[in-house]
Amino acid sequence: MTRKIGVTELVLRDAHQSLMATRMAMEDMVDACADIDAAGFWSVECWGGATFDSCIRFLNEDPWERLRTFRELMPNSRLQMLLRGQNLLGYRHYEDTVVEKFVEKSAENGMDVFRVFDALNDPRNMERAMQAVKATGKHAQGTICYTISPLHTTEGYVKLAGQLLDMGAESIALKDMAALLKPQPAYDIVKGIKDTYGDVQINVHCHSTTGVTLVSLMRAIEAGADVVDTAISSMSLGPGHNPTESLVEMLEGTEYTTGLDMDRLLKIRDHFATVRPKYAEFESATLVDTDIFSSQIPGGMLSNMESQLKAQGAGDRIREVMEEVPVVKKDAGYPPLVTPSSQIVGTQAVFNVLMGRYKVMTGEFADLMLGYYGECMGERNPEVIEIAKGQAKKDPITERPADLLAPEWDHLVEEATKLAGYNGTDEDVLTNAMFPGVAGKFLASRAEGPKNVGKTAEQIEKEKAAADGSSKAVRGPIKYNVTMAGRTHTVQVEPA
Amino acid sequence: MTRKIGVTELVLRDAHQSLMATRMAMEDMVDACADIDAAGFWSVECWGGATFDSCIRFLNEDPWERLRTFRELMPNSRLQMLLRGQNLLGYRHYEDTVVEKFVEKSAENGMDVFRVFDALNDPRNMERAMQAVKATGKHAQGTICYTISPLHTTEGYVKLAGQLLDMGAESIALKDMAALLKPQPAYDIVKGIKDTYGDVQINVHCHSTTGVTLVSLMRAIEAGADVVDTAISSMSLGPGHNPTESLVEMLEGTEYTTGLDMDRLLKIRDHFATVRPKYAEFESATLVDTDIFSSQIPGGMLSNMESQLKAQGAGDRIREVMEEVPVVKKDAGYPPLVTPSSQIVGTQAVFNVLMGRYKVMTGEFADLMLGYYGECMGERNPEVIEIAKGQAKKDPITERPADLLAPEWDHLVEEATKLAGYNGTDEDVLTNAMFPGVAGKFLASRAEGPKNVGKTAEQIEKEKAAADGSSKAVRGPIKYNVTMAGRTHTVQVEPA
Repeated sequence: MTRKIGVTELVLRDAHQSLMATRMAMEDMVDACADIDAAGFWSVECWGGATFDSCIRFLNEDPWERLRTFRELMPNSRLQMLLRGQNLLGYRHYEDTVVEKFVEKSAENGMDVFRVFDALNDPRNMERAMQAVKATGKHAQGTICYTISPLHTTEGYVKLAGQLLDMGAESIALKDMAALLKPQPAYDIVKGIKDTYGDVQINVHCHSTTGVTLVSLMRAIEAGADVVDTAISSMSLGPGHNPTESLVEMLEGTEYTTGLDMDRLLKIRDHFATVRPKYAEFESATLVDTDIFSSQIPGGMLSNMESQLKAQGAGDRIREVMEEVPVVKKDAGYPPLVTPSSQIVGTQAVFNVLMGRYKVMTGEFADLMLGYYGECMGERNPEVIEIAKGQAKKDPITERPADLLAPEWDHLVEEATKLAGYNGTDEDVLTNAMFPGVAGKFLASRAEGPKNVGKTAEQIEKEKAAADGSSKAVRGPIKYNVTMAGRTHTVQVEPA
Repeated sequence: MTRKIGVTELVLRDAHQSLMATRMAMEDMVDACADIDAAGFWSVECWGGATFDSCIRFLNEDPWERLRTFRELMPNSRLQMLLRGQNLLGYRHYEDTVVEKFVEKSAENGMDVFRVFDALNDPRNMERAMQAVKATGKHAQGTICYTISPLHTTEGYVKLAGQLLDMGAESIALKDMAALLKPQPAYDIVKGIKDTYGDVQINVHCHSTTGVTLVSLMRAIEAGADVVDTAISSMSLGPGHNPTESLVEMLEGTEYTTGLDMDRLLKIRDHFATVRPKYAEFESATLVDTDIFSSQIPGGMLSNMESQLKAQGAGDRIREVMEEVPVVKKDAGYPPLVTPSSQIVGTQAVFNVLMGRYKVMTGEFADLMLGYYGECMGERNPEVIEIAKGQAKKDPITERPADLLAPEWDHLVEEATKLAGYNGTDEDVLTNAMFPGVAGKFLASRAEGPKNVGKTAEQIEKEKAAADGSSKAVRGPIKYNVTMAGRTHTVQVEPA
């Protein structure tokens, strides 16, 4: 009578990406892996663009080695990654052989489930990556990025799911990166996909920023969702995700169950409860924020625009920029606002306010208008396309953007070969291909081994003591004995 | 087609009670009152036992004056309070005239809605308070304290609702003080009450500690709940409550709506976002905790028992005590674990572990076993009743506990008259009656005016700077030039 709901645990990837700027070191994860492996998750998300980037940029850690370690420590689990379609883990389109090579190597190093998405929801940008995954025999998951606009309807999302299934998706992910998915649309979309395409597996991914999405997961489950994404409670909430244990308890007494092992969950929780404070300096103070429902602007995008304005001495014009964003978004055909479209639209809105609407276009925005990122759900404004043509001196395209790229694997190998520390593997070539500016430095310093940017328990203790001390110090006069050159002076200190 | 869901805003009472030990000063609330008054809440909870206690114990603030100020600042709102039935705001039963006097004075000073509860769910302990409320023409709300035990069933709660309605309750509150109410029982209980008694108003109060209760509110609404309790987002979550704005957004697209004014909510939110950090030292680190589902022990009760054990040098025996709690709870007839039953059961469990089961009973536990707190849902263990009789040298009672009390108003007036600072009002008599140990000191110092125990923005800034400084200081040697009596010395400081 009860239906089993699968759970994807996010603590090893999206949870620390969302809560602590992806800074968690591998050494702070290894001790939890045995419990994660045995808890009964449908999959364990543990790899993606930001974790890969952070490994080589901040942690001097080889991301491929991290993947192999996960594979070794969690032999019974499906390891899952987030893949930016034709962008792989980087910020540009890669030529198809690179896509194939990357997927092949990821599978070989231990990846099982590839959640393939595209910021614009353009199926053509996901197709090759999905084919590559299927060629390795691994699980190809097609993704719908959820957003709100006058053009984004339940019917549209259901149609997109059909396109992904036609491309061979083994399951469909409904990805709500901005915590915009309210209970009713969650229900409607999942129900729509199930009603239209039969019993296709649906995974639902929500952030918790707006505080409503555990209810959305409940409604999605009621509509037939098969797997939902959560993070262990000690690494949950705020800009992160709903707590895994709360999901388990929420379903008690209903016709659904996760089948997760609560004893294991509590061990995982306790482990990360000790880890989280080490990275407190990377955390934002946001506990819950429903502003995005009215502004339609994700928090990260807003703070980006604010710092761009400040850098131009125009910090007081954020309201104007916030009103410009919907205009730019509409002109661009209503792209979902995720990396990289959120940055592209946001920066153009700032330019429009500071210099006049479309007087100066960024190269990226011109590319977006001219089709070089792919197609959105809406039509792009023809007048703005004309301006883009003029400024960028490029013609608009209608074909799949990656079709314009020449084979580049040999060139990428050549580039890698020039780097100090290159070990001759395809993995190193791919690392450099993903983050060309950063990889060289990493490969050169790789031998020094990983570094942990979290604080030690001792440092936390000292800072706490200092803060406590200061709070006492400011309240009244304190006397110190200061000894110098054998003579002791009594010094009184008080707030000036 | 849409049904309007009322909202009780908790920020002025339970939110700061749960998040910051009830320490918020009136001056940190007044500036938000105009927006709260205009936002469209069903009621504004703003008074109760702990806020009253905290006013006179920590804030040197007259709680009656606080109530009058709320009345003045929120002329369009229903003000709501939490009343411990025959215990009023104190920790013992009061004789009926005192109950009447207290309710009369509360109404006179501005209270509109009285949520009347009893820790044991004994209707006889709520009856007089409810009658007194009705005599003033105000709203009497009967309360079900929600707990989980082998005896607590949906049917039992529905029956209790009927008893409260028979006593004249204008509405029923389902009060989930430990965040134990899961979605399915929330639905079942609300549905059961509506199905049995027709369209009686049901208010649902949940804490957010376990992370599941926004879903429970959703299900309660689907089952017909009329009003739900939430707290503005900047004063929400953790041991507190679900965020008001999230509730509003959650219902969009459904057949329910709160009708709240979001612009007002955002102003209220922004106000308390600046207030909350001032009281950070009173906050617990708990973000979400589902332990209570397995332990059945509320967090506050657990920490109480831990400190009792530590004081006896037996801090390592907490596991034994946690296993003893269910035994004691069963022997006592399965009381819900809220103040004061949680302390009474917890302390006895500690005594049992340290000195042998029921070798030594606390006076309170003996009273509980002998019926002096009223009746629970379960039968009490006859063997343990016998032990209680012997140790307390008292007989068990079956009548309403307050029936044993002699008239006490005149005596209370006499007691108050002896106090320095007593202003001759019934309100002062009642203040002293509620908290006799604390009121005397408060009345004597009342003229000095309220004090704010929160930190100033300046203090917070200084502490932050100190903490930042320390984190830099400990990482390497720092040189200072120290000038004394005209001579400059170079001093090097580094971690020892």
